[in-house]
Amino acid sequence: MTAEFGAGVHERLAGYRERFDARFADYFDTIARQRLPRGSFAPEALELVRDMSLRGGKRLRVALLYEAARLVTVDAVAGLEEAALSIELLQTHGLIHDDIVDDSPVRRGAASVYYAYRERFADRPQTALGLAVLAGDLAAFLSVRVLLTAPVPRDLRQAMAAVQATAGADTVVGQILDLERDFGPLPDRATLDLVSEYKSARYSVLAPLQLGLLAAGADPAAHEKELARYATLVGISGQMCDDYLDLFADADAVGRPAGSDLRAGRRSYAVCAVLAATTGRERELVESALADPNCRAETVEHVRDIAVRHGVDTRMRAEIRRSAEEAASVAAGWRRRWREEAVGFFEQLPLWAAQRAR
Amino acid sequence: MTAEFGAGVHERLAGYRERFDARFADYFDTIARQRLPRGSFAPEALELVRDMSLRGGKRLRVALLYEAARLVTVDAVAGLEEAALSIELLQTHGLIHDDIVDDSPVRRGAASVYYAYRERFADRPQTALGLAVLAGDLAAFLSVRVLLTAPVPRDLRQAMAAVQATAGADTVVGQILDLERDFGPLPDRATLDLVSEYKSARYSVLAPLQLGLLAAGADPAAHEKELARYATLVGISGQMCDDYLDLFADADAVGRPAGSDLRAGRRSYAVCAVLAATTGRERELVESALADPNCRAETVEHVRDIAVRHGVDTRMRAEIRRSAEEAASVAAGWRRRWREEAVGFFEQLPLWAAQRAR
Repeated sequence: MTAEFGAGVHERLAGYRERFDARFADYFDTIARQRLPRGSFAPEALELVRDMSLRGGKRLRVALLYEAARLVTVDAVAGLEEAALSIELLQTHGLIHDDIVDDSPVRRGAASVYYAYRERFADRPQTALGLAVLAGDLAAFLSVRVLLTAPVPRDLRQAMAAVQATAGADTVVGQILDLERDFGPLPDRATLDLVSEYKSARYSVLAPLQLGLLAAGADPAAHEKELARYATLVGISGQMCDDYLDLFADADAVGRPAGSDLRAGRRSYAVCAVLAATTGRERELVESALADPNCRAETVEHVRDIAVRHGVDTRMRAEIRRSAEEAASVAAGWRRRWREEAVGFFEQLPLWAAQRAR
Repeated sequence: MTAEFGAGVHERLAGYRERFDARFADYFDTIARQRLPRGSFAPEALELVRDMSLRGGKRLRVALLYEAARLVTVDAVAGLEEAALSIELLQTHGLIHDDIVDDSPVRRGAASVYYAYRERFADRPQTALGLAVLAGDLAAFLSVRVLLTAPVPRDLRQAMAAVQATAGADTVVGQILDLERDFGPLPDRATLDLVSEYKSARYSVLAPLQLGLLAAGADPAAHEKELARYATLVGISGQMCDDYLDLFADADAVGRPAGSDLRAGRRSYAVCAVLAATTGRERELVESALADPNCRAETVEHVRDIAVRHGVDTRMRAEIRRSAEEAASVAAGWRRRWREEAVGFFEQLPLWAAQRAR
């Protein structure tokens, strides 16, 4: 991959993001006018869902969706806007509930919905919790609803909504697996990969691909296996990259203290790799840091040094790269049937994303 | 309404319940085989969703659905089974999250999902909370998914799923309104009715009606206003009846201590009526009991006496009856276009249900 290729991906992402964010804001304006009865609590909940939604990052999922349609055609494709809304609303739903599950005060650089409510109802924690659960539920139902009312034939609405309902259920299972990962014996690589697949690849990569193809008139079921393979590899590479950065990146670059997975007792790819690589007193030190929210920065630094000494960082970078390259080679096979330019995007994307870990 | 009419409703309900419960158990067996990757947490979550689902009560929603189809035809109607599953899964979703919102240990005579997890993870309350949120989410996505994969034409799947996604979103708004009801100035009757409409009538009465008609080939949109009117009246009558029983029924009959709404600070129809009817020291006594979880049985008894002295019980019974009769008269108008026998069911049902308050 050349530098220009990376720049190409970056600019395409920025274009999708800009157009989508404007559409997303419109969507919330429309919903706020249509669907809310009296009182201030329901508008407030919608406002918090909106804030969290519009605070979105790179909108990688939206880009995947639009590029998936471009695998088939460059013509304007009806239903993509609603599919993009659905994808990002499902994401918002996941974030809101995830922050309850993890008791996280911060998300996307500001208060999580849960903590926004806890501040608003400082003397009523139960009300705050309840409203946060409900705000997340609202996003989930809106995510499905926006597809079922899209201005496209009913067949297509049905097929797209089925993709999202399945992605939603799979993601919940992934979040449950993610919680389980931190209990019992140290998870093996297959288990970590399964968590990546269920918790993120299915809704973040596979579903956007399926929705884009469906909207463009192709049948994703005919290519189910290779789409799933691509999605899983991208998901694994991306998750591994996040986990790598959490331990090895400069805190400034990530925007939060290094070692947050370690402190929270999350058995990330990086944490598992360090545990697997160490024995005796080193292992004891790593384990003493694990799940200790008060673990000091120096201890994290120490764990990082141990990891580097055992080559964990080098091995992880190689693994991230390997998964990304394997994903790219799956995408390369799509040239036989799909448009070159969009295939190129799917080839480059995982490699571009993997550059974060270096 | 004669005694036989009531008995007729009762027997029809029992028939639907029995058939449905067997189908519901089958559904969970199939899901458990299909959709769960390794580990024990995901199967456990599904098991808790299943337990809560099969612990279901009268299955009134299922009866409404099947009778709605019978408004049009006595032939077997494809899609009703999946619609029934969707309705009851949406209910399970609501119950699981409601018990988090209300911090309720008991539901349907056994542990709520939240408290089942709190017992299982006694030393990890955060994990218990997270898993309960996720179990509720799983039920929500399954509720939509079961419709989108029903063995009926795609048009019908789309239409039915749209009904449920809207019902889901409306119910969440209703739960938010319900929380707001207990803050700020005393809610007026219109606000209480709005809560009943959003929180229960839409998913419990309107959606089953719409789904049954859709599956039977009728277009519910053509009769939207009167279906919504019927649903709202049944919802108001039913909610008022629950609230009445909570304050006025023998504790043994309801299966929980009398005055639970009062103790929890819930501004039910009954609580609002007592507050509105009292002044001075009586009002002070009612307000002292409100939202006091340790409020003694004698104090509840005292509040009840005050309510009776002011005729609150009599007025509530009259209101319950009036809403039920109005609902029955809306249904009576359906004779012009729909099958007599099923119209009779919809006429009798609200009157039969209102008999609980006497």
